[in-house]
Amino acid sequence: MHIHEFQEMMRRLYFHRDSERGVKGTYEWLVDEVKELWEALEEGDKEASEKEFADVIAWLASLANITGIDLEKAALEKYNNQCPKCQHSPCQCTA
Amino acid sequence: MHIHEFQEMMRRLYFHRDSERGVKGTYEWLVDEVKELWEALEEGDKEASEKEFADVIAWLASLANITGIDLEKAALEKYNNQCPKCQHSPCQCTA
Repeated sequence: MHIHEFQEMMRRLYFHRDSERGVKGTYEWLVDEVKELWEALEEGDKEASEKEFADVIAWLASLANITGIDLEKAALEKYNNQCPKCQHSPCQCTA
Repeated sequence: MHIHEFQEMMRRLYFHRDSERGVKGTYEWLVDEVKELWEALEEGDKEASEKEFADVIAWLASLANITGIDLEKAALEKYNNQCPKCQHSPCQCTA
């Protein structure tokens, strides 16, 4: 599934709730999910980690929806088959 | 671009660096990018926000690469055209 299609699915499922909650509240949910991802990784629980990865990208897409940003377009404008800093693939940045 | 293809692009660009840095260091970078996303959103800077959204999904894909998780598969197993909690589209959860 395209990143854009995933974001649109999140819009269909959650836009009404996301827009009521607002940008700050939705961002705070994203932060919570990022914390839960670490807990799952630290426990070495692969199934839980998969669910938390899913939640992080889902909340990131929700946040993009209510801030009017196309996540796929943003991602590919910065990362397009080369490192945005050194312009190499693979990245050859020294720091 | 499919979520999976984006993850593979991140693998080509950064896997050698991500795997040297390790899971904890890569997770910490993700957390920093999430913080920078908030700074850009708070400033209302759309161009900066787009770049930070790009960085968050990029570091999430890097973290998925070094933890052996397929981000697209994980996302679609949990979110597949209905809310995983209430099974409705749009979501009808009451809490």
